[in-house]
Amino acid sequence: MAKVAILGYGTVGSGVYEVLKKNKDVITGRLGDEIIVKYVLDLREFDSDPVQEVLVHDMEMILNDAEVSIVCETMGGEHPAYEYTKRALEAGKSVCTSNKELVEKHGPELIQLAKAHNCSYLFEASVGGGIPIIRPLRTSLAQEDILSITGILNGTTNYILTKMETEGLAFETVLARAQEKGYAEKNPDADILGLDACRKISILTSLAYGKNVDFADIMTEGITAITSVDFAYAKKMGATIKLFAKSVKKGDKYYALVAPFVVKPENPLYAVKGVFNAILVNANMGGETMYYGKGAGKLATASAVVADVIDCARHTGKHLHIKWEDEKLEISPIDGAVRRFFVRVPMADKAQIENVFGEVELFQDVADGECGFVTEEMTEVSYREKAAKFGNILSMIRVD
Amino acid sequence: MAKVAILGYGTVGSGVYEVLKKNKDVITGRLGDEIIVKYVLDLREFDSDPVQEVLVHDMEMILNDAEVSIVCETMGGEHPAYEYTKRALEAGKSVCTSNKELVEKHGPELIQLAKAHNCSYLFEASVGGGIPIIRPLRTSLAQEDILSITGILNGTTNYILTKMETEGLAFETVLARAQEKGYAEKNPDADILGLDACRKISILTSLAYGKNVDFADIMTEGITAITSVDFAYAKKMGATIKLFAKSVKKGDKYYALVAPFVVKPENPLYAVKGVFNAILVNANMGGETMYYGKGAGKLATASAVVADVIDCARHTGKHLHIKWEDEKLEISPIDGAVRRFFVRVPMADKAQIENVFGEVELFQDVADGECGFVTEEMTEVSYREKAAKFGNILSMIRVD
Repeated sequence: MAKVAILGYGTVGSGVYEVLKKNKDVITGRLGDEIIVKYVLDLREFDSDPVQEVLVHDMEMILNDAEVSIVCETMGGEHPAYEYTKRALEAGKSVCTSNKELVEKHGPELIQLAKAHNCSYLFEASVGGGIPIIRPLRTSLAQEDILSITGILNGTTNYILTKMETEGLAFETVLARAQEKGYAEKNPDADILGLDACRKISILTSLAYGKNVDFADIMTEGITAITSVDFAYAKKMGATIKLFAKSVKKGDKYYALVAPFVVKPENPLYAVKGVFNAILVNANMGGETMYYGKGAGKLATASAVVADVIDCARHTGKHLHIKWEDEKLEISPIDGAVRRFFVRVPMADKAQIENVFGEVELFQDVADGECGFVTEEMTEVSYREKAAKFGNILSMIRVD
Repeated sequence: MAKVAILGYGTVGSGVYEVLKKNKDVITGRLGDEIIVKYVLDLREFDSDPVQEVLVHDMEMILNDAEVSIVCETMGGEHPAYEYTKRALEAGKSVCTSNKELVEKHGPELIQLAKAHNCSYLFEASVGGGIPIIRPLRTSLAQEDILSITGILNGTTNYILTKMETEGLAFETVLARAQEKGYAEKNPDADILGLDACRKISILTSLAYGKNVDFADIMTEGITAITSVDFAYAKKMGATIKLFAKSVKKGDKYYALVAPFVVKPENPLYAVKGVFNAILVNANMGGETMYYGKGAGKLATASAVVADVIDCARHTGKHLHIKWEDEKLEISPIDGAVRRFFVRVPMADKAQIENVFGEVELFQDVADGECGFVTEEMTEVSYREKAAKFGNILSMIRVD
């Protein structure tokens, strides 16, 4: 029997409690053992909720109870989640978390600490909500040299872009509606500026290469500049626009960025609509695999935390090895990355454009007084030089 | 250091050898230990291949070598693969296999045998080639009550259907071309009649519910009756046609079938083209997750075998628990399954059709002298009764 404590009875914490309760029989059957919630830590009271029976207000009770072997950190935020996690690991209790900020900031240290105390620090729920991606990277793809990871890692922005595409609406209109429906936060910056996706690709890239990516090294562009005119061009190209969080290994160089991309139907990520997330991994032996599902939401996220709990229960007294060293993974400047670019400029002759950009595919009659074109492949720095030379660029979106 | 023997140096076996060799450094880094191929068993000689150095012709050498802790069974076929697997497990050596026939036929027995000898029997590569699906079912989804599994599990048929759709060609034409290109076998029956997909959904369903599904209980229809006219109707519906291998849990009943389905773009499986495979799992807590990738091919399949090898190396002397009991999982007759049906009949009035089938959505002007319609939801048995009453059904395809 494995005894568990849940830290925080908010959205995810109460979800973990619910998953463990509702699917008790299934879990016991698969694990061959029972998982019991012994404590739920929260400052509040929940009088009409059965959780009240196991509710405690003092972390010391959990830390001092040798019966508790697994702790679910579903508080969010850096403090006191960080201190509680450290103390739990030091007490030999495995910690399973959905706390992306903490993982991104302190992952290598907490993994090391878990190792030193023969327990585990697992964080499947920190990226992609209910989508299995951290565990597949650690197990199913352990034999692979990862060539690239491309993710739709933020449900809010994918929902906004999907609505802009299907209903022809402006960014601001869709954002306002998404906020009304609770799909977007009142302060949506972390989502729409790409910062949330950036933290997540930073975690995935660290795991893929075993060294620590500083998310500040990742060039990050949000979706605030995307307009319905951009979608009109995309439609003409038979494409759509997605916010991609991407990292690529090329020889001994690593590139990473978060930015909107023009995406064609040939890419399996093209079909990922609404609040769904997906991660496409390209590996040197098995080729492309994709992982798709709900990137957020109470039960999806909680379900991923419970998957980690079961993994810990299967490995009591053992450290589940995750290669993520403190050594920094050098992210190369984006300048050298090669791709095509979709560019909008005030109405111009093809000759005039090709004089600067080389051969392009031109799109006219989409919006008054302007045209759009897709360049051949070139480096980011080469694009920037040409754009500066041409002058008067209305907008640019990278092409996948 | 883990020492491995590979049984059979055919397509998959030589792929396993290649993956372990080419990705040696990556694997050592992630595992924190080295994996060495000590033996490759094959009756043939491979004089100009470095494998010759470790080539043996006698299984006894492998069984008697206590250093070998993991055996990759990549021979295929039932005999002697079955006997070799049993003897390896009895000797306490874990076995990792791509042999779908053996897994489907003897899974529960071989898992029990592994358990009795503190080793493991793993078979990620037996379903979905390079797509992680067996391990996610066992680990990432261990907390889930699985409500349904829908798979595109056969690359040959998906390739044929994709080509029929995009190029408007007849089934026979595409099949002949696929055979020329090596995408279809000379005797393609196992693929085009749905038998291969049936074995695979049988394995996945057994794992989802922990009991043994007899694949003979699964109603199986292939794609040989699908025509370009069907695709013309599908196009008019904004849909496509896919061969689905499907199992559903409804209350305490289990349904399973393999059959072509009309699929709309809202289904994430809609976008799975060509030889790619994908598995969509619907679970009671986390909702839908999908796993996508190469369903076959030397390196993709080999890569999945090596993922299992690493898992065994991480768990030396320990049995990796897989719940798949010998007890039979009762598959309910398809009669009670509820869905919509796409039906083609000789030209008829809507009133005439609705008189028998109830309300339908009618499609005309697709082919001369006939029309097509989609029924409301009804049971399979109810559909059959109505179809018998109406008489003269040209074709029927289920609607997802």
